[in-house]
Amino acid sequence: MRQNLKWALAALMVTCAATAVPLAASLADDGASPIFGVRIPEGYRDWKLIAVGQEVALNELRGVLGNARAVEASQGGALPFPDGTVFVKLAWKHVPVEGLDGAFVSGSPTTVQIMVKDSAKYATTGGWGFGRFIDGKPVDEAQHRTCFACHEAHAKDHDFVFTRYGR
Amino acid sequence: MRQNLKWALAALMVTCAATAVPLAASLADDGASPIFGVRIPEGYRDWKLIAVGQEVALNELRGVLGNARAVEASQGGALPFPDGTVFVKLAWKHVPVEGLDGAFVSGSPTTVQIMVKDSAKYATTGGWGFGRFIDGKPVDEAQHRTCFACHEAHAKDHDFVFTRYGR
Repeated sequence: MRQNLKWALAALMVTCAATAVPLAASLADDGASPIFGVRIPEGYRDWKLIAVGQEVALNELRGVLGNARAVEASQGGALPFPDGTVFVKLAWKHVPVEGLDGAFVSGSPTTVQIMVKDSAKYATTGGWGFGRFIDGKPVDEAQHRTCFACHEAHAKDHDFVFTRYGR
Repeated sequence: MRQNLKWALAALMVTCAATAVPLAASLADDGASPIFGVRIPEGYRDWKLIAVGQEVALNELRGVLGNARAVEASQGGALPFPDGTVFVKLAWKHVPVEGLDGAFVSGSPTTVQIMVKDSAKYATTGGWGFGRFIDGKPVDEAQHRTCFACHEAHAKDHDFVFTRYGR
């Protein structure tokens, strides 16, 4: 009986250990943005360039990439963007080129910011879900509450997207 | 005899007409840069993003794209870049986002600038051939004389390339 109990306990511990890791990982750091549940899409760094930008207050230069649907829709120019459109904005530090006044290159990465179009799922935010990531981890809920407010205030006439395709 | 002469003249005119078009095209507007003979590569707009930049004096934002060899070499970081590396820098006007202080997007296109690595062909300019284009046409020889001088002065320690791959 004692032997059986020991085996039963051992089996229980193994079961707990086996389930503990994925449970902990999914609860503590599942990689999805608060509010929207947006994740960093696989392979995004190899997506095509839509356009570039600058954010002086953050001392950043940006490149906006898009999945195939984003590229096609941006080239065509028709609005609204179709469901399945995904934009990824990569932000880097704004770094002067030594000895060349007024020339700047992109330096170390700061954030990766994502917009996903799903008009049903994100009906209350113009059809867009947002994700803002630092080192692959989503930033907090308070920051995510600011995304749509700004896109709504300044880019409503272009389906809440600042970026136009750069020819 | 007169008939023979007429036929000979007619044949000569046909020959001239047939060769005149390609000759004229290659002499007057062959699309290649002065000095280097660099052309705008087919399909470059769909190449992957290497990094972004800014040129304040020209009021421009830039995106640098690369062919497969350029991307691989930039990611790896080893120097010099291998022959066959091609970078294309797209430049656009630096346009403020209305109502959003310090935020800028890329506007209308200005120039497309190309660097092609061929260490034998371009041995006197660090192994690089240059091309600068406006509306698909190469700019003049004087402008092309400035390319290598600037890359040599400011990017010699990175095989004459300003841009680092942006992760």
